Amino acid sequence: MKQTFEIAPWHVATHKWDPEDKRLQESMTSLANENLGMRGFFEEGYTGDHMQGVYLGGVWFPDKTRVGWWKNGYPKYFGKMINAVNFMKMIIKVNGEQLDLAKQAPKDFKLDLDMKRGVLTREFTVEIGGAEMAFTFERFVSAVQKELVGQRLHVKNLGNSDAKVEITSMIDADVYNEDANYDEQFWMVLNKSANGEHAELTSETKKNDFGTPQFTVGMKTTTKTDLDHAGDGTDEKDAYNTFAGTVAAGKEVNFEKRTVVVTSRDFDSEEAIEKHLDELTDKFDSQSFDDLLDPHVQEWADRWTKSDVEIDGDEGAQQGIRFNLFQLFSTYYGEDYRLNISPKGFTGEKYGGATYWDTEAYCIPVYLGVANPEIARNLLMYRYKQLDGAFVNAKEQGLDGALFPMVTFNGIECHNEWEITFEEIHRNGDIAYAIYLYTKYTGDKSYVLHEGAEVLTEISRFWADRVHYSQRQNKYMLHGVTGPDEYDNNVNNDWYTNLLCKWTLQYTLEILDEVDDEVAKKLNVSEDEKRRWKGIADNMYLPYDKQKDIFPENDGFLDKDLTPVSEIPSDQLPLNQHWSWDKILRSPYVKQGDVIQGLWDFIDDFTKEEKKRNFDFYEQFTVHESSLSASVYSIIAADIGYEDKAVELYERSARLDLDNYNNDTVDGLHITSMTGSWLDIVQGFAGMRVRDGQLHYAPFLPKKWNSYQFRQMFRGRILKVKVDKNGTKIDLVSGDPITIDLDGKKLELK
Amino acid sequence: MKQTFEIAPWHVATHKWDPEDKRLQESMTSLANENLGMRGFFEEGYTGDHMQGVYLGGVWFPDKTRVGWWKNGYPKYFGKMINAVNFMKMIIKVNGEQLDLAKQAPKDFKLDLDMKRGVLTREFTVEIGGAEMAFTFERFVSAVQKELVGQRLHVKNLGNSDAKVEITSMIDADVYNEDANYDEQFWMVLNKSANGEHAELTSETKKNDFGTPQFTVGMKTTTKTDLDHAGDGTDEKDAYNTFAGTVAAGKEVNFEKRTVVVTSRDFDSEEAIEKHLDELTDKFDSQSFDDLLDPHVQEWADRWTKSDVEIDGDEGAQQGIRFNLFQLFSTYYGEDYRLNISPKGFTGEKYGGATYWDTEAYCIPVYLGVANPEIARNLLMYRYKQLDGAFVNAKEQGLDGALFPMVTFNGIECHNEWEITFEEIHRNGDIAYAIYLYTKYTGDKSYVLHEGAEVLTEISRFWADRVHYSQRQNKYMLHGVTGPDEYDNNVNNDWYTNLLCKWTLQYTLEILDEVDDEVAKKLNVSEDEKRRWKGIADNMYLPYDKQKDIFPENDGFLDKDLTPVSEIPSDQLPLNQHWSWDKILRSPYVKQGDVIQGLWDFIDDFTKEEKKRNFDFYEQFTVHESSLSASVYSIIAADIGYEDKAVELYERSARLDLDNYNNDTVDGLHITSMTGSWLDIVQGFAGMRVRDGQLHYAPFLPKKWNSYQFRQMFRGRILKVKVDKNGTKIDLVSGDPITIDLDGKKLELK
Repeated sequence: MKQTFEIAPWHVATHKWDPEDKRLQESMTSLANENLGMRGFFEEGYTGDHMQGVYLGGVWFPDKTRVGWWKNGYPKYFGKMINAVNFMKMIIKVNGEQLDLAKQAPKDFKLDLDMKRGVLTREFTVEIGGAEMAFTFERFVSAVQKELVGQRLHVKNLGNSDAKVEITSMIDADVYNEDANYDEQFWMVLNKSANGEHAELTSETKKNDFGTPQFTVGMKTTTKTDLDHAGDGTDEKDAYNTFAGTVAAGKEVNFEKRTVVVTSRDFDSEEAIEKHLDELTDKFDSQSFDDLLDPHVQEWADRWTKSDVEIDGDEGAQQGIRFNLFQLFSTYYGEDYRLNISPKGFTGEKYGGATYWDTEAYCIPVYLGVANPEIARNLLMYRYKQLDGAFVNAKEQGLDGALFPMVTFNGIECHNEWEITFEEIHRNGDIAYAIYLYTKYTGDKSYVLHEGAEVLTEISRFWADRVHYSQRQNKYMLHGVTGPDEYDNNVNNDWYTNLLCKWTLQYTLEILDEVDDEVAKKLNVSEDEKRRWKGIADNMYLPYDKQKDIFPENDGFLDKDLTPVSEIPSDQLPLNQHWSWDKILRSPYVKQGDVIQGLWDFIDDFTKEEKKRNFDFYEQFTVHESSLSASVYSIIAADIGYEDKAVELYERSARLDLDNYNNDTVDGLHITSMTGSWLDIVQGFAGMRVRDGQLHYAPFLPKKWNSYQFRQMFRGRILKVKVDKNGTKIDLVSGDPITIDLDGKKLELK
Repeated sequence: MKQTFEIAPWHVATHKWDPEDKRLQESMTSLANENLGMRGFFEEGYTGDHMQGVYLGGVWFPDKTRVGWWKNGYPKYFGKMINAVNFMKMIIKVNGEQLDLAKQAPKDFKLDLDMKRGVLTREFTVEIGGAEMAFTFERFVSAVQKELVGQRLHVKNLGNSDAKVEITSMIDADVYNEDANYDEQFWMVLNKSANGEHAELTSETKKNDFGTPQFTVGMKTTTKTDLDHAGDGTDEKDAYNTFAGTVAAGKEVNFEKRTVVVTSRDFDSEEAIEKHLDELTDKFDSQSFDDLLDPHVQEWADRWTKSDVEIDGDEGAQQGIRFNLFQLFSTYYGEDYRLNISPKGFTGEKYGGATYWDTEAYCIPVYLGVANPEIARNLLMYRYKQLDGAFVNAKEQGLDGALFPMVTFNGIECHNEWEITFEEIHRNGDIAYAIYLYTKYTGDKSYVLHEGAEVLTEISRFWADRVHYSQRQNKYMLHGVTGPDEYDNNVNNDWYTNLLCKWTLQYTLEILDEVDDEVAKKLNVSEDEKRRWKGIADNMYLPYDKQKDIFPENDGFLDKDLTPVSEIPSDQLPLNQHWSWDKILRSPYVKQGDVIQGLWDFIDDFTKEEKKRNFDFYEQFTVHESSLSASVYSIIAADIGYEDKAVELYERSARLDLDNYNNDTVDGLHITSMTGSWLDIVQGFAGMRVRDGQLHYAPFLPKKWNSYQFRQMFRGRILKVKVDKNGTKIDLVSGDPITIDLDGKKLELK
């Protein structure tokens, strides 16, 4: 655990320059707008240890997977987000010496992410080329114009004599992925040019052997500055414009760089990309930097109006929840149903920028509460549009229906670990569940009765083929699965997976009763098929242990050496950094809730006693080594009245990245886990539930806090819920009157 | 199934030229001498589809393993045998046209592996450069001089006019592995020279990041021919001597190439390697080709004296058993305890030339019967010498003692599939068992009471740490293992593994009672430790199902969908070519015996009824998709009196490669599986057992056969056992008198 940034309600800022924290700072100061984003690396370059990362949503590369023995059903390739051409680059020289904070130690350093406005600034003074110069950098990734990134730099001469300043604005295709196998590069430059205030570079991804698309990306920069134009150029892999001038003592110069990025995801030819680059550039060239910045800042204000959470009495918690929402919204705000939410968003290479089940299980429940329903709906559309890929995945396993991928860009499974790839199939149920959740929360049946019915049917077809009947137990079973608790692999009868399988079949049957004839005809589910589904659902095996009166996570779980986590010496934690995978797999330790995840999904379907017994049993073995874990336990703890436990668990996830809790934020932020703090406050502390279309609350106030309040969107309204020592106050901020339930009592809001 | 070669008792020959069979022919005509070997590729080159492969024992390369998520305990690299510099190469031109059977169709083609003499010949005539020429190639890999390979060529002019013949003898380092990830090459040339009748090339393997040794290999060739010396040369990656001359109509020329190969496995500097190359070359230069060939042929005669099996009434079976012994002896004949037996020997790239548990489980039982005991002992020494690596492997898993690797060159695990690498740990028990078997068979306790005691102790330490105690069942268990039946992975309580674990602990305790003080002191096993081992052995959980009265292969096995193999449509077999890995893992189908393997190991410890019940149960689910499978089932079938079944199962493995039974012999021969036919005849049909130091036989004669006889080495004797329609006749060929047991009756042999 390490707190590198100062605590402040709307800022993630530090006044401390420490090269040790460079990668951490870069992760924390990432900016993105769903379409593109980058780590907070220094545009002027940095020769010390750091990780330069610019990423483009949905732009990836399929890499080879030739290790071990390939078997039928293994993915052909693994997909990864590739580090994009670096359009941020500026080479800055003062009196001939190049700015590089690895070489010139900065003074009065300040790095500040303003979460309210979505702007990152950096200030420092430095001795360079014999001069003392003050630099102020500013950058934003436009929340309103997805192709646009703005950078602004002020350089002030603090010394007593003239300083010669030269700044080169560059687009640089000489970039690497840190996770490349053989240090290979992925971008081939097609065109490049530089002239006056403009530079342009178009590149495409390397050819691949797998028939997935190559991507073409065009980038065009405009530079506006008080400095004089001093030349242009292109090298094999870059294009640049250089500006230079003399800055007198006490004076400053201004340098603005705007970049427009257009990809083949939106335009299908190089010509069309370049044409669109020119059109956008022309449009932005006629606007001032502030003209471009202002609507971006306004958009962030609007987002906060719908979603802000205020905590009184705990500034760290206040900062944490805002940082989480800020980064989540940066990663995805529902503009484009072809995009999704990678576990690390645009903040690092880990998890390859791909889509996981995190989206459905953890992100959709939050977006439903903090943003317009279209955003969650677009996430559901993403899966619908990838149904063809899901058919392929199921077919690769020799199975019917749709198997949505564990890791994907295009619907095709692209992660190569069999125990995950074709065993962690609960994801199929999570996707079905998200459809249910969306429908339950919004009341909007337009998805579930059309696209959703198709997704549900094909998932059910998968389940019906994936189960087998055990003659010995006279039950349907799922062998060879991996549950959300990935510290156990290839198990038989994971309780959570079996539960979701049973539930999906039941829910699909319910929905099929409601779809119109046209949809029914398309889906073509026969009565026989329905009977079979019902038979499976009715006879699905769900592990239950009489003696302990709990749901065993899977067959064999209770045969393990059931030593609680508390008996493990603390220097062996976290297990994944100290234990071999062999020991972890055989241990009873739970990475993230499996049974507890199921209790959360169906929180109203189990008795308090059932939830308590299972929580008490599993909590002693749970190590929360997935960042997605603690928040779910917190919700269940709150539900069963373990308030202090709920708060303690909340704290593990609320400032996970801000405090570098898992010591891995250098790799990037835990974007999808950032949902946890909102869920804990709203579903946990405030006890928010939707039952029969009505909002319910049963709040408590964490002991340390004076109050908390959050905004929540629900069926066209914005509500404000405030919980303090005097009780709970719920206001309708906008929208039609509504009746809610507070602590079991009806409440009319107008 | 495809029979490409003619059936003959001592030859594997074909008179048919078919480019379709090229790879298959290359596999089948591989030659080796434990130290080096090569596929039967054409020395003159071949531009059609084929697989050139020259391999050097124990010379390998560690490659990267960067796919999936690396976890603690995963190997750092995967090791593979690399295709060696091609010293066999000859470029042959007639009237300027280069010989290449992909271009000139041969007539009167004959390819003949003489198993009695260990010589491969190839004859054909061909129209080339306007001439009709007859070629006869001959090659051997010396069984007495491990560094030596001999090639001889006669070229005869069958036409009516002179033909200009030019032959270049070359050492060529421009070679590739077919399994390379990025078509990379592994050999860097250090030195090369060519002068007169000699060419020489020294190369080393690429640098690697894993700290494993780089290998240096020197090769020197001598050419002797009637042709005139026409020049020498070297290119970046080769060295060569060219000879040319005119061959008059009806005349022939002779061309001999001898190659000496010396590696850094034997000499630690480039200089020492080159010095030894010169010494050996000088020595061989003074000898004729026949001088070099004769002792090689004599050595093969000696080998056959000790091991030959004769079958009357089934020429295919006769050829099969000899081919199996020939290839097995070529792969390993115990010269060097640093070498071992890779599943494909020197015949292909698959399985990477590494050592597997095949050696202990399938090869040692055969070598004990057909060769001097030193050979099996050297295989045991191999493991002893690699104990340090086994400590590393165990430590990587956070476990005590020694974990011998699943796949290795140097004792360190180098295969990267967790379900194999650290789960298929029965291998540790198989290695312990081989020590027991060696001791039981030879009566020689020198190994088990010294090196063996150490190996056993460290394996027992591993087992004692790897088990856990299940409070629920009050038993010790092994969770997270993979048995020999790799069609089930990561199971709990694999019966075979648990049995071996229990047995190893018991056997180690027995041996510890016998070791001398010095050994005891070194091993330092406390009374506490012994008590713990005894406690585990006494309380080891062994799956048993009351209802079916069988040993379930593992927990959960009987919950599977127990549909017999006979109900699978035949176009879905073999499963591994038609089913996804997902379906295979969840199925009840057995790749190779797991419970049956255990019944074999302890064949006298189970009642006939127990063996019958388990055989009947498992046979219906067994697909024998490991080439190691059928032979073990055959032995058990014979043991329980299922004679026809025993013969049927024997036939699956006896001509596995000769008939390309699994349609994969193109990749190389199934060297370690070749032991199966000998085991089936001797342990199965002849019912050979060693009980209390005495040989027992209980033979039957397969219905189709007139007779079979085999030679068997036992404690300094050679016995000849002949079984025909009149009964069994056992002779003592050499050695002291001995009493044996035939069908329950004592028999004195003098």
